[in-house]
Amino acid sequence: MFSHDDERFMRMALAQAEAALYLTSPNPRVGCVLVKDGAVIGAGHTQRAGGPHAEVMALRAAREAGHDTVGATAYVTLEPCNHFGRTPPCSMTLLEAGVARVIAAVEDPHPAAQGGLARLRDAGVEVRCGLLRDEATEINRGFLRRAQGGLPWVRVKAAVSLDGRTALANGVSQWITGEAARADGHHWRARACAVLSGIGTIRKDDAQLNVRAVDTPRQPRRILVDSRLEVSLEAKLLHSHGGPVTLLHVSRDADKEAELRDRGVQLIQVPEAANKPGKVDLRAAIQALADEGLNEIHVEGGGKLNGSLIAAGVVDELLVYVAPRLLGEGPGIAEQPAYSLLGDAPLLQLHSAQVIGEDVRILARFRPQQG
Amino acid sequence: MFSHDDERFMRMALAQAEAALYLTSPNPRVGCVLVKDGAVIGAGHTQRAGGPHAEVMALRAAREAGHDTVGATAYVTLEPCNHFGRTPPCSMTLLEAGVARVIAAVEDPHPAAQGGLARLRDAGVEVRCGLLRDEATEINRGFLRRAQGGLPWVRVKAAVSLDGRTALANGVSQWITGEAARADGHHWRARACAVLSGIGTIRKDDAQLNVRAVDTPRQPRRILVDSRLEVSLEAKLLHSHGGPVTLLHVSRDADKEAELRDRGVQLIQVPEAANKPGKVDLRAAIQALADEGLNEIHVEGGGKLNGSLIAAGVVDELLVYVAPRLLGEGPGIAEQPAYSLLGDAPLLQLHSAQVIGEDVRILARFRPQQG
Repeated sequence: MFSHDDERFMRMALAQAEAALYLTSPNPRVGCVLVKDGAVIGAGHTQRAGGPHAEVMALRAAREAGHDTVGATAYVTLEPCNHFGRTPPCSMTLLEAGVARVIAAVEDPHPAAQGGLARLRDAGVEVRCGLLRDEATEINRGFLRRAQGGLPWVRVKAAVSLDGRTALANGVSQWITGEAARADGHHWRARACAVLSGIGTIRKDDAQLNVRAVDTPRQPRRILVDSRLEVSLEAKLLHSHGGPVTLLHVSRDADKEAELRDRGVQLIQVPEAANKPGKVDLRAAIQALADEGLNEIHVEGGGKLNGSLIAAGVVDELLVYVAPRLLGEGPGIAEQPAYSLLGDAPLLQLHSAQVIGEDVRILARFRPQQG
Repeated sequence: MFSHDDERFMRMALAQAEAALYLTSPNPRVGCVLVKDGAVIGAGHTQRAGGPHAEVMALRAAREAGHDTVGATAYVTLEPCNHFGRTPPCSMTLLEAGVARVIAAVEDPHPAAQGGLARLRDAGVEVRCGLLRDEATEINRGFLRRAQGGLPWVRVKAAVSLDGRTALANGVSQWITGEAARADGHHWRARACAVLSGIGTIRKDDAQLNVRAVDTPRQPRRILVDSRLEVSLEAKLLHSHGGPVTLLHVSRDADKEAELRDRGVQLIQVPEAANKPGKVDLRAAIQALADEGLNEIHVEGGGKLNGSLIAAGVVDELLVYVAPRLLGEGPGIAEQPAYSLLGDAPLLQLHSAQVIGEDVRILARFRPQQG
């Protein structure tokens, strides 16, 4: 159904989308390549939220290079949008540009935006969808699921020794992994809509939760699970360069809340967990973040928070950097109940393993548990 | 110094050596390729200990195919031996065959066997050494070090969860990793001269320590660290198909020793550890195994034995299969003292990481600690 050339051009469009990985949140990262007479005449990707979409950027590039877009084929990694949001619908823009064929990787499930391919087809454009669907889905997992009413994609990151310890028994943990792995970790922060942690990590490491080791045009939101509003007003989190800060809490404290708001912190009160009085219900918390428009959440917390998130069934993947060292005693990735059978312990599916500098990066996924 | 063709032929010789990986212990695994007028006329590898060496096999293959070996080039992954052992010196055999050039990957450091290249050079053969030395060294690390008076190469194997646990807290550990990883583990058993474990593992798993998941022409020796001669006479280790059994002990018990000897068990009494009364001095134990002619020792024990071997400074590498699962509490790879600084904990060097079926295999090496 798709030719070798179709695949080649869609791979270029995917590369465009990848180039927008840090940029477009909460919008999806989309790439578009325009081809005419077998040659690429324009390419582009979605800009910052509110800015032009990939199709517009590619058409603009083609025109600026003096090309006529009439009769061209557009390769897009996501179905062109069909609604007036902050920009006009891309389906209409492609029609106006006289594009003859549109090949998309994956349908847009967003209720407001979907229907672009149907509109194009109705207008006589040759339309096909599904080329390199898996690769395109990978780039926007969170967006695609949330657009269908699901929860954001949640990734838990950890750096561990070969014996699975995230720190020495005395808490010393800087640094378990090497510089290359730490920079790679910031790449994953940068692509996320938000970096989430718990009050324990802020207390222990005074973590900033910002992107430092890689260049990024956008800092992800920083989210702190702080059930009892315990964060210090002096915490680096509140004073360092980075994305806006959101605090998820259960307890109320009018004075502390006012002081936090004064410092620009967004406060979201969340129901308390049924089995943990006074603690945030983490599933409700992640749902609240979905409602806030967050697609992809990158968690860097301690074993307690990680374990609770896993128990709440909201974690999609573990991103684990394994350093070739032994620590002996010390905290683990995620606190777990005592299992008596191996079959009861969480089993993930290996997604990839790669050497990153002196360490190994393992990405493993939980089997789907949620819509 | 070496041509592209030289490298190509040496790679063929290395592939021959690899094919002998399970076979030749305690002799090194050696490959030989004979080339004349740019074409391979014969190839072979060392046979079972006492059988012909690689050079003899390659010459035999060439003659059987009707080739004249006069003027040929021999590519050998280890310097040809120069002594009358169970076979005549290969240096003389190559001379008699009229070989004009010999290219070796690595020198033979064995005091009795070395000198083959010098003898060939003295006889007018063009001789060079050092082509793909690292690759050739990798195949015979233990042999090469032991031949220089060093200890055997000791590899500790473990299967762990992402959180570094080798079992649940209740001891359940079968199976942490998938079938492919378990078969891969048996490949590493098969190439070793001996598989070593501790009495704890025999008690807990009734382990057989034999090679089952891959075909092998030779079963490695099975070595049990059993300081107090506690092994049950009913243990599968003593009754299953596999290599001969050696027991390393401190305590004496004339009756038990006699019963074990009746069952074909070799007993080696080892001095007790200075810091662990009644326990085998593991460095002395590994030295005793060197004296027994063992080059490569594959350890599959528990965290206690692994930790003691590491503390004794005799472990060269960790072979760790990481399964994408979380176990929470449970034993680790190797018991360690409580460290207060990360710099005090053992830091290894990553050698390789590879996906094996559903799991990840990480090979990491300690920095050289011994001659």
